[in-house]
Amino acid sequence: MIEPRTLKGFRDYLPAAMLQREVLIETARRVYRSYGFSPIDTPALEYFEILAGKGGEEADRQIYAFKDQGGRKVGLRFDLTVPLARFAAQHISELGTPLKRYHIATVWRGEAPQRGRYREFMQCDFDIVGADSVAADIETTLVIIDLMKALGFERFAVRLNHRGVLNGLLEKLGLADSGPAVLRALDKIAKIPRDKVADEMMAAAGATAEQVDQVLSLSEMTGDAVEVLRQLEKLVAGAARGEAGVARLKDITEAAHAAGAPPTQLRIDPAIARGLDYYTGVVFETFLDELPGIGSVCSGGRYDHLAERYTRRRLPGVGASLGLDRLLAAMEELQLTTAAAAPCPVFIPWFAADALPEYLKVASALRGAGLGAEVSCELKKLGKQLQYADRRGFSVAVIAGPDELQAGRWQVKDLATKETQDVGATDGEAELIAAVRTVIER
Amino acid sequence: MIEPRTLKGFRDYLPAAMLQREVLIETARRVYRSYGFSPIDTPALEYFEILAGKGGEEADRQIYAFKDQGGRKVGLRFDLTVPLARFAAQHISELGTPLKRYHIATVWRGEAPQRGRYREFMQCDFDIVGADSVAADIETTLVIIDLMKALGFERFAVRLNHRGVLNGLLEKLGLADSGPAVLRALDKIAKIPRDKVADEMMAAAGATAEQVDQVLSLSEMTGDAVEVLRQLEKLVAGAARGEAGVARLKDITEAAHAAGAPPTQLRIDPAIARGLDYYTGVVFETFLDELPGIGSVCSGGRYDHLAERYTRRRLPGVGASLGLDRLLAAMEELQLTTAAAAPCPVFIPWFAADALPEYLKVASALRGAGLGAEVSCELKKLGKQLQYADRRGFSVAVIAGPDELQAGRWQVKDLATKETQDVGATDGEAELIAAVRTVIER
Repeated sequence: MIEPRTLKGFRDYLPAAMLQREVLIETARRVYRSYGFSPIDTPALEYFEILAGKGGEEADRQIYAFKDQGGRKVGLRFDLTVPLARFAAQHISELGTPLKRYHIATVWRGEAPQRGRYREFMQCDFDIVGADSVAADIETTLVIIDLMKALGFERFAVRLNHRGVLNGLLEKLGLADSGPAVLRALDKIAKIPRDKVADEMMAAAGATAEQVDQVLSLSEMTGDAVEVLRQLEKLVAGAARGEAGVARLKDITEAAHAAGAPPTQLRIDPAIARGLDYYTGVVFETFLDELPGIGSVCSGGRYDHLAERYTRRRLPGVGASLGLDRLLAAMEELQLTTAAAAPCPVFIPWFAADALPEYLKVASALRGAGLGAEVSCELKKLGKQLQYADRRGFSVAVIAGPDELQAGRWQVKDLATKETQDVGATDGEAELIAAVRTVIER
Repeated sequence: MIEPRTLKGFRDYLPAAMLQREVLIETARRVYRSYGFSPIDTPALEYFEILAGKGGEEADRQIYAFKDQGGRKVGLRFDLTVPLARFAAQHISELGTPLKRYHIATVWRGEAPQRGRYREFMQCDFDIVGADSVAADIETTLVIIDLMKALGFERFAVRLNHRGVLNGLLEKLGLADSGPAVLRALDKIAKIPRDKVADEMMAAAGATAEQVDQVLSLSEMTGDAVEVLRQLEKLVAGAARGEAGVARLKDITEAAHAAGAPPTQLRIDPAIARGLDYYTGVVFETFLDELPGIGSVCSGGRYDHLAERYTRRRLPGVGASLGLDRLLAAMEELQLTTAAAAPCPVFIPWFAADALPEYLKVASALRGAGLGAEVSCELKKLGKQLQYADRRGFSVAVIAGPDELQAGRWQVKDLATKETQDVGATDGEAELIAAVRTVIER
């Protein structure tokens, strides 16, 4: 006998959780497609050399790597960006630009499992590859906002920054060479006191108190996007890259507002430093107003050199990644998930032994009308059957014993209110279907 | 520079193929749910001991197995049945029976790649675990038929057999001990001449010419299900297991016919021998009338001891697996796939530089009405833009230059017929939306 268990950091998805996950995935798919993004898929296993060396030694150690049956060194993908880069280098000539793709797939990282972090999780990325224009930045912003709304969130904000703003300011202050050290310190501003951050900037980056004040002002700007952009414009005035960054952010927010994005859902946050070693333009993070502590649920940005390890062709792009599992956890916490529900609304108990063909016929008619129906696959007493139906979360039971069947009648039972209605089934099930539909739509 | 390539036996799914695959998956999901099946998911990686020893040494060698960072011996799942068995042993007490689950997921086998066979492919399984009754067998039959119809097939047949029929006949003939050798020979009847099969049966199983005739009569019965069952009844008369098998097949076909399954789509094929070492009751295979050569596209059956390696609890069940990739190939050959299409119907060219906000606003209104719309993310001449729209397979272009925008007019262009219609956009885009919808539904 072998003990049935999953590996540490891995988990099964039981029906209730998986139904929620499918709703999320379906919603993301619908939103991505409505903007003209197409799905792609890539192998879970890639040559190790394709995957390695992207995120430093620590990241390489997290790759599930091994030799396959043919002696090739292979690894499981740890994100969807490296596979996209390889994919784009390989297929972009055939597919043409812009390549607008979404990719919803599993990735694996052998990191130490923590609460809410798993070694196997799903990513949900969308990117526009081969487009430099501001229109692509704007579209990415709008997709994130639409996606969050479609998932049922109202109180959230997409926060924008631009690499040029930070770099422009550092150049203007003569701190360009200590950029990484300054940014590392700035990145801690939400977690440790201001004076500790200031101390670190002075010690590690050799910044003066005045320079520190200017850098930290990035994290202290308040107001809506228009207001923050005005302050930023002043701060970086004279630094060409900074001015260009602010102008780009202005174009993005103005166009997004014109397209209907409300100011509360689109903010400028000049302190976002994360991921700036990879991104080269606009950067996105998305926070839930009610759960800021869980971090960004949808992050991304613009990059200039997607596939530079695999091709000499310049492939700039912009996109973002929805943190599916983090979002699921958040939705549970905010009670945005629907209650455990059956995968279809109707249950038909099998309690009159000979009546199975009748039950199957009615189920088939209901399905034909778009109303999913499960016929019990166990002959049991009606009471037991209705307990099962309640436990599974069906909405309606359609019930008939031998007498009812003889009389061509069905009982339609609302499993929430327990009300029962008696309907005929002699007219091609139309009356029955209508009664079931009424209960479901109640 | 690293060469961008995929591993041998693995492949990328480009947008056109992936759109088709998503349609297939969505259809399968819809049909499974309409019968009350819920989704589950399990880890791609399992302890090797969970996976190993199921299909003999050759099968074990095909498992992608390795030691993980923690020194555990792990492997990638090679089917969805072993994970289901482990899952059921682990969670069935919590979930209760019957457990009706579907599982659509990737599996990996390190076998020699052949035409149409890959080392990574998707399986699409559904099973009812914990149900002995004939109702579960009937439901499985109906799901397969509905699934095939929902995928667009009309000319197909689900072929049923029952392990009891074969075993009953072998017992009756006194050949029970040489069962495996007889079945291995019988299994070749479609590929090699009858007398060669007969020779093999006589040589390997020690059967007499008369015994061979009786066994081979299984592959020579013609007629619809009712007719074949009548012949089988005679053939196995007196062998209890055989009679029970025939009776079960009769119950299944009668109920399925009553529920609307046409006789052409449901046949009895007493020669199906495959998988009989695992299955203990009814067995299913599904063939396309026009492409019998590609083999069964949906196969399964009833088993008595799903999880016996992981639990002492008896878990019988019945289910089947849709061969997603094989079916996709068949649909391409039969031209059942839709032509390469864009993921959304509307394209809005960006050719008047300042008009981007107007384009975005209209796109947003169209999306609000359920009509997906891509706004070009590159500023280019109109002619180039329309070439892109044709290449990508959009249905409609919604076009406005500076003059039209000033006048509040849009051109709605049917990209199939090239007809253009001039509509207003001053009334909250209602007129425009109606015009676009008319072209799409044309």
